[in-house]
Amino acid sequence: MRIALDAMGGDNAPRSTVLGALQAVRENSSLEIVLVGDEQAIRRELPGELPAGLEIHPASEVIEPDDEPVRAVRRKKGASLVVAVELAREGKVDAAISAGNTGALMTAGLLYAGRMEGIERPALAAFIPNIKGRATLTLDVGANMDAKPHHLFQYAVMGSLYAEKVLGFERPTVGLLNVGTEEGKGNELTKAVFPLLARTDLHFVGNVEARDVMQGACDVLVCDGFVGNVLLKAMEGTASTIFSLLKQEFTSSLINKVGAAMLKPSLVRFKQRMDYAEYGGAPLLGLRRPVIKAHGSSDERAIKNAIASAVRFVAEDVNGFIQDALQKNQSGESE
Amino acid sequence: MRIALDAMGGDNAPRSTVLGALQAVRENSSLEIVLVGDEQAIRRELPGELPAGLEIHPASEVIEPDDEPVRAVRRKKGASLVVAVELAREGKVDAAISAGNTGALMTAGLLYAGRMEGIERPALAAFIPNIKGRATLTLDVGANMDAKPHHLFQYAVMGSLYAEKVLGFERPTVGLLNVGTEEGKGNELTKAVFPLLARTDLHFVGNVEARDVMQGACDVLVCDGFVGNVLLKAMEGTASTIFSLLKQEFTSSLINKVGAAMLKPSLVRFKQRMDYAEYGGAPLLGLRRPVIKAHGSSDERAIKNAIASAVRFVAEDVNGFIQDALQKNQSGESE
Repeated sequence: MRIALDAMGGDNAPRSTVLGALQAVRENSSLEIVLVGDEQAIRRELPGELPAGLEIHPASEVIEPDDEPVRAVRRKKGASLVVAVELAREGKVDAAISAGNTGALMTAGLLYAGRMEGIERPALAAFIPNIKGRATLTLDVGANMDAKPHHLFQYAVMGSLYAEKVLGFERPTVGLLNVGTEEGKGNELTKAVFPLLARTDLHFVGNVEARDVMQGACDVLVCDGFVGNVLLKAMEGTASTIFSLLKQEFTSSLINKVGAAMLKPSLVRFKQRMDYAEYGGAPLLGLRRPVIKAHGSSDERAIKNAIASAVRFVAEDVNGFIQDALQKNQSGESE
Repeated sequence: MRIALDAMGGDNAPRSTVLGALQAVRENSSLEIVLVGDEQAIRRELPGELPAGLEIHPASEVIEPDDEPVRAVRRKKGASLVVAVELAREGKVDAAISAGNTGALMTAGLLYAGRMEGIERPALAAFIPNIKGRATLTLDVGANMDAKPHHLFQYAVMGSLYAEKVLGFERPTVGLLNVGTEEGKGNELTKAVFPLLARTDLHFVGNVEARDVMQGACDVLVCDGFVGNVLLKAMEGTASTIFSLLKQEFTSSLINKVGAAMLKPSLVRFKQRMDYAEYGGAPLLGLRRPVIKAHGSSDERAIKNAIASAVRFVAEDVNGFIQDALQKNQSGESE
């Protein structure tokens, strides 16, 4: 299996990407990783010669985190992120991974990898940690701003299969993000989606309120891209605000510093429970080729885990299962 | 001024409501509060005879927190929450307050108090604490699930006036909840709302992302009721999950307990910074009569503050200013 990795994407690139790739090929001898980016910068991170399993595909440009996605993808055709996705389109690799600009990766995925047959709107997924120690695969978190009922239906099918095949969840539960748990709650969109999901063979558990997501109310959570984006950023913002305020409090006096020092192992353990790196990158679902978005602040372990996700995405033929499932559940598309 | 208070609504009622009302009339001798509810239960909370400024209006039924709102308001016409709003409609009081079932209060407000002229969709507001120490007045958080652009325009006008007149914010900043800060971001709704807000005389600061709300990006945040409800519950859920996990960690060993004890004054101060009670209840905006929703877990201080909000709502003639502002800014209604 061959996987293209945008070596330049992410806050800690190219160090994290190169070292993550190195670990991945050491652990899996049948894997080849194509590092896409500035050859010199990549070689600088390598301990010696290019090891077996790693290749470099030069790319002259880089898309920055704050570049406007659509414009960046159109103008910087030689950017590492774009080239990685193009290699996947051309069939030169089986999957593409980037920890770079999320919008640009989605745009490149749509423009170059293309939509899977029968999928109108691919979705961007994200992981939300929950107290059950399993992440909630949430989609869409921003690819498609004005979703129709059958789009959410397709997200449910795609997310459920990804959770089963890649994350290894048995019969993953699927929830519909809503303002109340009773059927009939919500806006026009969710009211139309509920019966579509109820008549599939998915393990649909009904409406899920935002406050129950971190309690682990479901394994796969579906919503439109606008709402999903708000949900994700609301949670991130709340967590980071609480942590920074707590940090202020904990360092505001000597006695607090001593108290905080005593709690440190606990606080570290707590942060680990919330750690994105465990989940190995979130998929873009509904594209012709597997594309994985690794977290922007990925370290080498997170990159290695993203590579492992891409490997399972390909090896388990998730896209093949999605095609079959969509054909079986045509109901959703006729709405 | 006379204000009706649903004495039976809220987790700590009738103790919190009766004692909160008692404090309010002691501090403001021109105020009369009509306690609506079970006369015996109310009298039981009073230290002696009914003090000056307090009245009891008997109501035989109570709407429970988990009652289905529309059905409850229709069937329990004698419920304390319904009767409080009816007293406002009949002009027997100037405003109504309840800490009970939010959906039922909104329903009673629509059915009995009625919509203000020119307002198609009243909105439910909520306060989100921010690190600047000012709460962000967020609306709509669940009254209207499928909002049109001019509804959000009206929320902005109403929210801004409430923040100015009742909360005392000078030229409050108004933000539009969105998935990115650049103009042109978002779904069809937010793209249509942005130019409407830009051409008002409000202090519009543009799009605000969910992660920046707690950073205090704006004083008034507008969004449709579905998204606002998800935002609010996502933040509540994240905060309560983090606090309960931290509590687990902090009590998991003796050394942790000692460390946590040292930090206790800090943790208490921290919780106060996040305290809903300071903000005194959230308004239902766009109704003919001022109606305030106090937090379900209100203690007597929170009730007293909610009463203070209702007093300012009436005394400052917020509804009159809203009428004037809507006439000045007709632009929004023609879209």
